[in-house]
Amino acid sequence: MLFKMRIGLKLQIRIGCTNTKAPVSQILKYCNSRCLAVVPQGGNTGLVGGSVPVFDEVIVSVGSMNNIISFNKVSGILVCEAGCILENLISFLDNQGFIMPLDLGAKGSCQIGGNVSTNAGGLRLVRYGSLHGNVLGVEAVLANGDVLDMLGTLRKDNTGYDLKHLFIGSEGSLGIVTKVSILTPPKLSSVNIAFLACKDYSSCQKLLMEAKRKLGEILSAFEFLDNQAMNLVLHHLDGVRNPLPASMHSFYVLIETTGSDESYDREKLEAFLLSSMEGGLISDGVLAQDINQASSFWRIREGVPEALMKAGAVYKYDLSLPVEKMYNLVDDMRVRLGNLAKVVGFGHLGDGNLHLNISAPQYDDTILEQIEPYVYEWTFKHRGSISAEHGLGLMKANKIHYSKSPETVQIMASIKKLLDPNGILNPYKVLPH
Amino acid sequence: MLFKMRIGLKLQIRIGCTNTKAPVSQILKYCNSRCLAVVPQGGNTGLVGGSVPVFDEVIVSVGSMNNIISFNKVSGILVCEAGCILENLISFLDNQGFIMPLDLGAKGSCQIGGNVSTNAGGLRLVRYGSLHGNVLGVEAVLANGDVLDMLGTLRKDNTGYDLKHLFIGSEGSLGIVTKVSILTPPKLSSVNIAFLACKDYSSCQKLLMEAKRKLGEILSAFEFLDNQAMNLVLHHLDGVRNPLPASMHSFYVLIETTGSDESYDREKLEAFLLSSMEGGLISDGVLAQDINQASSFWRIREGVPEALMKAGAVYKYDLSLPVEKMYNLVDDMRVRLGNLAKVVGFGHLGDGNLHLNISAPQYDDTILEQIEPYVYEWTFKHRGSISAEHGLGLMKANKIHYSKSPETVQIMASIKKLLDPNGILNPYKVLPH
Repeated sequence: MLFKMRIGLKLQIRIGCTNTKAPVSQILKYCNSRCLAVVPQGGNTGLVGGSVPVFDEVIVSVGSMNNIISFNKVSGILVCEAGCILENLISFLDNQGFIMPLDLGAKGSCQIGGNVSTNAGGLRLVRYGSLHGNVLGVEAVLANGDVLDMLGTLRKDNTGYDLKHLFIGSEGSLGIVTKVSILTPPKLSSVNIAFLACKDYSSCQKLLMEAKRKLGEILSAFEFLDNQAMNLVLHHLDGVRNPLPASMHSFYVLIETTGSDESYDREKLEAFLLSSMEGGLISDGVLAQDINQASSFWRIREGVPEALMKAGAVYKYDLSLPVEKMYNLVDDMRVRLGNLAKVVGFGHLGDGNLHLNISAPQYDDTILEQIEPYVYEWTFKHRGSISAEHGLGLMKANKIHYSKSPETVQIMASIKKLLDPNGILNPYKVLPH
Repeated sequence: MLFKMRIGLKLQIRIGCTNTKAPVSQILKYCNSRCLAVVPQGGNTGLVGGSVPVFDEVIVSVGSMNNIISFNKVSGILVCEAGCILENLISFLDNQGFIMPLDLGAKGSCQIGGNVSTNAGGLRLVRYGSLHGNVLGVEAVLANGDVLDMLGTLRKDNTGYDLKHLFIGSEGSLGIVTKVSILTPPKLSSVNIAFLACKDYSSCQKLLMEAKRKLGEILSAFEFLDNQAMNLVLHHLDGVRNPLPASMHSFYVLIETTGSDESYDREKLEAFLLSSMEGGLISDGVLAQDINQASSFWRIREGVPEALMKAGAVYKYDLSLPVEKMYNLVDDMRVRLGNLAKVVGFGHLGDGNLHLNISAPQYDDTILEQIEPYVYEWTFKHRGSISAEHGLGLMKANKIHYSKSPETVQIMASIKKLLDPNGILNPYKVLPH
């Protein structure tokens, strides 16, 4: 189906002009007519090889399409081009008194088109939900150059099948997202952050349930890391200090609240911490006293991947699992690997999203054989997802069956064939080869 | 493509047994093999004829598939069969300390499978977002009897195309939803309701902006009705009294807050009302003092459709429009219709969803000619939606072009053909004939 182009050198096409619709459309039309494979590229920050060429695909970068088209202050709806860098959108909205419902570590270089195409998750999902809920419209160019204008700016629209969802998370394999319309919440003035210690995983879970109930509408992040992750951060990142230095704990939890009244919110969080301490759910804890301390707490949680990179080789898994079973996998892996490697667990506990990382001095097939396919089989057995937020890309396309039924994969393949009959868009990615 | 079955009488098949998968699958397989058309039916409460047979389709009712399969108190994820009545789910969750992210007038008889299939909106959307964000998984049976198991119970799953979205809002025309997995928020203990008067539509809009910012995370409803709607309710519904009887106002707004702390929330709402009164955004207002008064405020807003029915003939339109332009259409219609009919505007202002209703002593083609296609053309011109939350069903299938581009409709038709090649599922609905 796919004509493997052999032109000897990589061709990269950067698009940038006021009317961005025509060029992407024309490029795809041309490539499709000649069965030239294309890899759409945003900030190229993905972790599963979804935006890199495998052989000699034409790279279509949308980075120069970076205009904000409109912003409506009544509805909070932002319309922009796909190449806008997430951090720039965050800054723009900040000036308007709004925030993006999406925030992630790569915000300095990732682009909104890529975020939408990969259904990026990140740190605010527990509060604002996924992009399937927040993206109101997209413009996408199909493989044959047809422009699908689904760029609605309405919160509600029940007129036929909501096709935009096909382009959210399909990693550029069904079309290239060129414009996005997104609902942004008003910026709330009061942000509080607590860094807490728990004696076991069961306490972390109970703390989550309590936080959902008692902090309710102001809870905006519930992140966790285990002591292996904490150790790595403390050893490998300059200037990071343990906010709870009295003793090492098994688990650390970062809780953030965001609300509209500083004194109410702080009182509420303090009352919550007090009752959690009294109830034995937390062993220790500290509330950030200023923005610097708040940043230093976030630095610990966000610094885990960087510390892992500095520590040597790392095998990374991004899994969704039922919260109550999530940490059993980390324990199981420790038993399997023994002294071969360190097993590190951290992630978005509030979303049931575990980042399982295996750290070793160097890459070693003996280690890999202990990890795979065991991790995938374990996830399959517990009806989890082998890619919670990173996507499948090149690296996990052939592993889709661990999370999706054969009938579902078959329908995906049919839809791929329907929208991209020559298979030119991001080949070798997402669907099994 | 569709074989029009002529069997002389309507055949209704009610499904009910512990393993509900096999029967729906077998019925569809049988019907598909013989090109017998099928209309899936839930509570049959739709407003656009989406769940009624047109000629002699076999009605497949899922009403007896009404088991709750599981509920996870840590994650708040409910899994249930499609025939569960919404109100029963609300009661079940209430006992568990959770709520449905969805509430609507028809809750006493509508079913969750129908809610999902029609992407029902309702009263809580402004707080919790649409079903595309809250539904985590569905099981759907395709026209050929294949069961698509997409019944995930994970907040995050980026493994391939998220096909469940095709079944959310496609009104049973791509498959029959048999099971649903849905994320439910914790029930928050403090609910406050205010009934307010505004002198003009511009004040309503400004009030919405202020409410989003100042009430922020506790805002859970922002509904409005104009004085025509208020008059109808006061004249036609027994026992309804005007909470602001001193004088008639042009617009009425119902604001609800839901939070976790009664005293904070009430103080916050009172402060908001005071500043809105001082700023001239509201002319009068009252805060419900108890649950009975709160119910009586909701009764006014929810009673508008009933009052309209009692007043005579009614032409109903469910439109999404940019908030700032929304009420211009009501004004325009009043000019067009003059004394021929009353034009009533109410709805979910917080979502940009206008329920435009034209009330007349009896149905009259002269009136209809003044309304259609004008209303649809007006909506098209402002990039609105001709069906915000009711769907297209039978009544609006041919009007899809007012809200969707020809290319998009073409792709919809291709997907319909892919999943239901014989066209047996809910024919004459959603897509243009």
